[in-house]
Amino acid sequence: MSAGAARDAAHTASTLAEAIPYIRRFTGAVIVVKFGGSTLGAGKQGEGVILDQFAQDIVLMRSVGMLPVVVHGGGPQIGALMERLGKTPEFRDGQRVTDAETLEIARMVLVGKVNREIVGALNVHAPVAVGLSGEDGGFITAVERDPSLGFVGDVESVDPVLLRHLLAEGLVPVVATVAPDASGQAYNINADAVAGAIAESLGARRLIFLTDVSGVRTDPADPASALSRTTAGELEALIDSGAIVGGMIPKARACAKAVRHGVEAGHILDGRVEHSLLLELFTGSGVGTMVVAS
Amino acid sequence: MSAGAARDAAHTASTLAEAIPYIRRFTGAVIVVKFGGSTLGAGKQGEGVILDQFAQDIVLMRSVGMLPVVVHGGGPQIGALMERLGKTPEFRDGQRVTDAETLEIARMVLVGKVNREIVGALNVHAPVAVGLSGEDGGFITAVERDPSLGFVGDVESVDPVLLRHLLAEGLVPVVATVAPDASGQAYNINADAVAGAIAESLGARRLIFLTDVSGVRTDPADPASALSRTTAGELEALIDSGAIVGGMIPKARACAKAVRHGVEAGHILDGRVEHSLLLELFTGSGVGTMVVAS
Amino acid sequence: MSAGAARDAAHTASTLAEAIPYIRRFTGAVIVVKFGGSTLGAGKQGEGVILDQFAQDIVLMRSVGMLPVVVHGGGPQIGALMERLGKTPEFRDGQRVTDAETLEIARMVLVGKVNREIVGALNVHAPVAVGLSGEDGGFITAVERDPSLGFVGDVESVDPVLLRHLLAEGLVPVVATVAPDASGQAYNINADAVAGAIAESLGARRLIFLTDVSGVRTDPADPASALSRTTAGELEALIDSGAIVGGMIPKARACAKAVRHGVEAGHILDGRVEHSLLLELFTGSGVGTMVVAS
Amino acid sequence: MSAGAARDAAHTASTLAEAIPYIRRFTGAVIVVKFGGSTLGAGKQGEGVILDQFAQDIVLMRSVGMLPVVVHGGGPQIGALMERLGKTPEFRDGQRVTDAETLEIARMVLVGKVNREIVGALNVHAPVAVGLSGEDGGFITAVERDPSLGFVGDVESVDPVLLRHLLAEGLVPVVATVAPDASGQAYNINADAVAGAIAESLGARRLIFLTDVSGVRTDPADPASALSRTTAGELEALIDSGAIVGGMIPKARACAKAVRHGVEAGHILDGRVEHSLLLELFTGSGVGTMVVAS
Amino acid sequence: MSAGAARDAAHTASTLAEAIPYIRRFTGAVIVVKFGGSTLGAGKQGEGVILDQFAQDIVLMRSVGMLPVVVHGGGPQIGALMERLGKTPEFRDGQRVTDAETLEIARMVLVGKVNREIVGALNVHAPVAVGLSGEDGGFITAVERDPSLGFVGDVESVDPVLLRHLLAEGLVPVVATVAPDASGQAYNINADAVAGAIAESLGARRLIFLTDVSGVRTDPADPASALSRTTAGELEALIDSGAIVGGMIPKARACAKAVRHGVEAGHILDGRVEHSLLLELFTGSGVGTMVVAS
Amino acid sequence: MSAGAARDAAHTASTLAEAIPYIRRFTGAVIVVKFGGSTLGAGKQGEGVILDQFAQDIVLMRSVGMLPVVVHGGGPQIGALMERLGKTPEFRDGQRVTDAETLEIARMVLVGKVNREIVGALNVHAPVAVGLSGEDGGFITAVERDPSLGFVGDVESVDPVLLRHLLAEGLVPVVATVAPDASGQAYNINADAVAGAIAESLGARRLIFLTDVSGVRTDPADPASALSRTTAGELEALIDSGAIVGGMIPKARACAKAVRHGVEAGHILDGRVEHSLLLELFTGSGVGTMVVAS
Repeated sequence: MSAGAARDAAHTASTLAEAIPYIRRFTGAVIVVKFGGSTLGAGKQGEGVILDQFAQDIVLMRSVGMLPVVVHGGGPQIGALMERLGKTPEFRDGQRVTDAETLEIARMVLVGKVNREIVGALNVHAPVAVGLSGEDGGFITAVERDPSLGFVGDVESVDPVLLRHLLAEGLVPVVATVAPDASGQAYNINADAVAGAIAESLGARRLIFLTDVSGVRTDPADPASALSRTTAGELEALIDSGAIVGGMIPKARACAKAVRHGVEAGHILDGRVEHSLLLELFTGSGVGTMVVAS
Repeated sequence: MSAGAARDAAHTASTLAEAIPYIRRFTGAVIVVKFGGSTLGAGKQGEGVILDQFAQDIVLMRSVGMLPVVVHGGGPQIGALMERLGKTPEFRDGQRVTDAETLEIARMVLVGKVNREIVGALNVHAPVAVGLSGEDGGFITAVERDPSLGFVGDVESVDPVLLRHLLAEGLVPVVATVAPDASGQAYNINADAVAGAIAESLGARRLIFLTDVSGVRTDPADPASALSRTTAGELEALIDSGAIVGGMIPKARACAKAVRHGVEAGHILDGRVEHSLLLELFTGSGVGTMVVAS
Repeated sequence: MSAGAARDAAHTASTLAEAIPYIRRFTGAVIVVKFGGSTLGAGKQGEGVILDQFAQDIVLMRSVGMLPVVVHGGGPQIGALMERLGKTPEFRDGQRVTDAETLEIARMVLVGKVNREIVGALNVHAPVAVGLSGEDGGFITAVERDPSLGFVGDVESVDPVLLRHLLAEGLVPVVATVAPDASGQAYNINADAVAGAIAESLGARRLIFLTDVSGVRTDPADPASALSRTTAGELEALIDSGAIVGGMIPKARACAKAVRHGVEAGHILDGRVEHSLLLELFTGSGVGTMVVAS
Repeated sequence: MSAGAARDAAHTASTLAEAIPYIRRFTGAVIVVKFGGSTLGAGKQGEGVILDQFAQDIVLMRSVGMLPVVVHGGGPQIGALMERLGKTPEFRDGQRVTDAETLEIARMVLVGKVNREIVGALNVHAPVAVGLSGEDGGFITAVERDPSLGFVGDVESVDPVLLRHLLAEGLVPVVATVAPDASGQAYNINADAVAGAIAESLGARRLIFLTDVSGVRTDPADPASALSRTTAGELEALIDSGAIVGGMIPKARACAKAVRHGVEAGHILDGRVEHSLLLELFTGSGVGTMVVAS
Repeated sequence: MSAGAARDAAHTASTLAEAIPYIRRFTGAVIVVKFGGSTLGAGKQGEGVILDQFAQDIVLMRSVGMLPVVVHGGGPQIGALMERLGKTPEFRDGQRVTDAETLEIARMVLVGKVNREIVGALNVHAPVAVGLSGEDGGFITAVERDPSLGFVGDVESVDPVLLRHLLAEGLVPVVATVAPDASGQAYNINADAVAGAIAESLGARRLIFLTDVSGVRTDPADPASALSRTTAGELEALIDSGAIVGGMIPKARACAKAVRHGVEAGHILDGRVEHSLLLELFTGSGVGTMVVAS
Repeated sequence: MSAGAARDAAHTASTLAEAIPYIRRFTGAVIVVKFGGSTLGAGKQGEGVILDQFAQDIVLMRSVGMLPVVVHGGGPQIGALMERLGKTPEFRDGQRVTDAETLEIARMVLVGKVNREIVGALNVHAPVAVGLSGEDGGFITAVERDPSLGFVGDVESVDPVLLRHLLAEGLVPVVATVAPDASGQAYNINADAVAGAIAESLGARRLIFLTDVSGVRTDPADPASALSRTTAGELEALIDSGAIVGGMIPKARACAKAVRHGVEAGHILDGRVEHSLLLELFTGSGVGTMVVAS
């Protein structure tokens, strides 16, 4: 072995010796991963690559005994079909009104298109992905948020039995965030909130949000202000102070709530970094913001 | 008890005494039921009633220990969305050409709309239904039928493991007939053929087609020519002689093939008769055509 | 289908749709049925028919997953053998004195004759019946009622383990009501009381007495006064008021005690009505008196 | 320790060291023991003692993990009840004719009296005995021997499942030799033959006959001619030569047949010797005739 | 059978009838047996015989379902090797000082010589013995007694999991009394104390010390003063009063402590008596001193 | 993230993505590792470091679900004690003669010293190591090689049951290569041969020899001639041609034999390279010679 090869080998050896205890620690651990519709995009260049690498990481995690659960949204894709069907979105107080037709379109896109694409991308590596919505086995029960918003729901409860069965069979559930209320009426629900509720109901070890920023920042405009580790309390203070804004708010809320209800830690990562899931879970340094209870 | 009440009681008692051995015989038996898209219709009056009664029968079957699997199509519903999107169907040699866009529409409708409606109708009675397509866990593998038809596939194989797990958990799989080939490309497949292939792979006791006619007729124009019992050989002869036509052909073929490959019997019933599934399975008389191997 | 056939089919379909939830509800439920020696009779016309129909109902109940346990008496049959052996019955305060020879005769008749006939009638349908007395595995412990009455006992305790093993193997225990005390001395015990004690020890769902009247009447002379539903409290009041008399008293007492100790309901039926067990258990109307805790 | 005590201790120690390997060897082994009605007698002095010691040995065998099954007859006891009922026995070609009334009497005595006494004697030591006849669960099927003899049957088949279940629960089956034919008609069967057939069906390790002689003799008149070990072939030759006579014939036949069909050994012992079962099974010397295949 | 043979048979029969309930009572019971290094000796005549008989008894105990665990010392053997290596023993306050070299010698002798000899003697009878020290799986944790004594340790804790696994596989653990502290440093520990700690951690039924005296004496000089049964309290009083001396002290202490912590009884026996283990455990009389809690 | 940090992260990510499939592939795989006595040395500088890193690698392998088994020799350590005891080694035809005293010394050193040191080094990381010799449970049976060599044995058979039990409990067996013949006489056996025989008996996935050279060389004098991959046939040819010499011969023979008997591959590695086990097993490049069947 040349000196250079020996140095490389030593580096590889130390990476392995560092990673193995993490791999061991997560064996049998449920990891809920929210994969955003905006990451999937609606036709942007490079999307296929990101989805494929995400799929590879999930399958690798599964292969060393972790139990990943994928939750996804699909806002841009819903908007694209509505446009094609000549349906004009309506807003009330800044929130989208979901009438019966919009719900049907959303459900077709989430369950019949986005979910299928993620399931397909995973199954290219190993036939382990099974798509679900909260309607399957009625495992998520929704409740109407506000009559004037139509069929926009919140999570009332999650029954983890069906997910546990699938996990026990070595499968990876991929969840579209449509769910019925007690009467059977379906609702569209915010995917970040669903990811958090599923993590809590499963007693997940980790709840991970893959986004297109590099973590939580104390100053939204300054990448250098990204936190590598924070607590539920600090996060809530950052929301209250206005330092956390936009789509980061439901992610931060879901992380804070989950770690207060038994989830060991939440993570908010930049899903565009190559193998960001592996780096966050299997190395000491990590690549995003980790949220713990206190 | 009045004489009239006593007569009624005696009738009820004899119905029960007759039904119980059938109920017992089907305990633990897999029953694959194909529910047609045309039965569901695309907005016709009374559809809701038929779907609800179908759902009630499936849940009753499940509740006495049978293991029903539902397979569905959705041709009319696909056509309706294509029309709304201004997509003109193209035909070659009488078969619909399925380009990439048509496939995406078909998948959204089958997986994201029809499947959801059936799952929802079942779960109103008991939260047992779980929707699937052949993509989930890659449990159906498709093969391209003819390059000039685009993404129209045939069933290459069915891996029954995922269905068996769901059945073992007391769940009712509801299958939309989209499936990937070995490379991951999705195809639309004829639902009658999928129902037959699933029945064979599970070693189902029964394969039942719910249609809008009262069974197989030797003379298509004459309802009185409906057969109450026939064999695979006779059925194939009726197809060859032209006595069986149109949409009955794939059902008859699937029945004949299934009973030759281990399924105890096939049934072709009029799904519009109230509780036709219960009458066919739990009484000596039956209400449609039963197909046996010989 | 003719209009008449369609009407019949609709009636059958609704009977099935009504019965199935009951059948489902009783799956795995222990049902203790007391079958009276007087119903068996001592040679009267029609007895064979009643026993055979009873046997058929028990086997049907078993076949859909219920767990029936049969308890029987045999007073008339004991009397008949005593007479043949020239043994004169002796009474004290209206109760029969049971000396050692009478006990031996009672045991031979109950265990060696009546029990065998019931076991035989059941096993003609399916080889599921296993005869027992409280002596087998010492599963019932008796205690002497009154030294002056000789070997007349009361139930001290029931150990349900042996019955549970037999039920778990798919067998139907048929119990003759002879049992030993702690020293091994055998006693004859009232069969109604044994049925109640077994139902309690097994946490039975139902305790059913098959008699030769149509249920509990508030006026013994008036069949129209039969109750279709009553409570433990009302029943005890009817005993105290003298409205319930004779052999109905121990049945009513056993029902009241059992439902106060966890048995869901007691039933007192006319065993001479065809398939009365099926009608009472699997239809909403019922054919006798149902007793609940309150 | 005195020299005498030391000698006794040494003797005890060597008995234990010799017995333990036998005890170990028979752990889990099925041992079928035929206990004769004539040993039980019909009131002779000392009978109670013999029954009690027999019961103690069976319970000891069970307590060290052996699986004893007891089979019994009851000829003298049947005769006694027939006499009391004024019923004259009828013979044809030296065999007793069993009409319907005789069968009913035999069944009452075997199942309702002798079986109860053995069950009771065992249960005084530990509540392990469960009485059965071939009618229970239909586990023995009989066939008519000769129409002119009435209800005298031979064993057609033994289904060992019920016995295996009872043995697996730590129970000791005690079998009365009445069994139904395929139509449900009961027959009385020779107990020696039943013991042999049960031993074969269970793949018993040993088949033991407790009699009132000290084993098989080559000269019936000479106790010194008793064999300590013989083979199936020798035994059959002794039957053919007339050296074996009377009630020893069916025992010898059953032993020879059983060891030819997989039972490791048969034993014919003097049941009047104290703890003869323990001495035969747990010491090298033995106290009766042991029969092996060859 | 001659009268003499009959008398012998009766004696054997009564020995068996007495022993069987003991054998039964100890089925599944853990029995910890301390076998002294001085019993093994260092070359004295007859040693092989004692070791072989001890081995035979342990294997017989195992064969009837008891779960023996052997603990041994080896003082004389350690001394012999030290002498050959020219190492002079050093004492402080009457206790041997164990420097690093002495510890290495002790470990080689205990683990690599004495343990091997006992394992070998047992495995000649049946391949059941597995040698261990407290280092294996770290199942014993030691703590330093006194820095000035070097590597002399006391038992801090025993983790019984490894022993339970071996026992569950039908194996006989043979334990040498070397164990590490929390940092991994090994210590030599008194074998009597280890035997007691193992018995407590396993919830053993019995803790037995095989010595070269006939039990605990109230007067060390008088064999007739040997106690057949005593209590923890009495034993401690005898130690305090000086009646118990020398090597008997740690045995008596271990017995008293063990029976106060859940072990049913301790025994101190003369290991030179033939089959003393069998006599003590399987007969009513016993051959040593039995210690109970109170 | 700086550009340098991003490069490092990318390197780490690709190392992980490469390693995980290997880790997955070896989950549940038995890996037999021979650790040489010469690697342990007899007091040379750096030995402790090598042993500790070896121990860390074994524990990491175990922690991700591999099932390592360690086999060791101890030649130099045996020689050292013999010298201290003034025992002169004797040779015949170049092989060491092992008389009874030499065997006792060898056993004390292998079982009581070297084995303890390896067990101790592993247990510092996690209490998983259990030391064994072939005498424990008699799991290896030896046969004498040549009477004139004394107690030098060859492996006759390996019974893998005990090792399987320990592996199933999550333990790491550490095997000293002493084993008894059928009569119980112990022998010293070559550790390379034992490692091979154990790998075969367990159906191991890999057999790995840690040596102090960098693999098999076609020219012993030229490090650059080291092979990275070879076959059983080539290896045997190299032995025959004299290219493989000395202590490499038994390793090469064991590898060739093992891969011909079902072991997937053998490896001969330089145990002095840091984490050589991790590099060889979890990266595509490897650091030694891999031997396959063909």
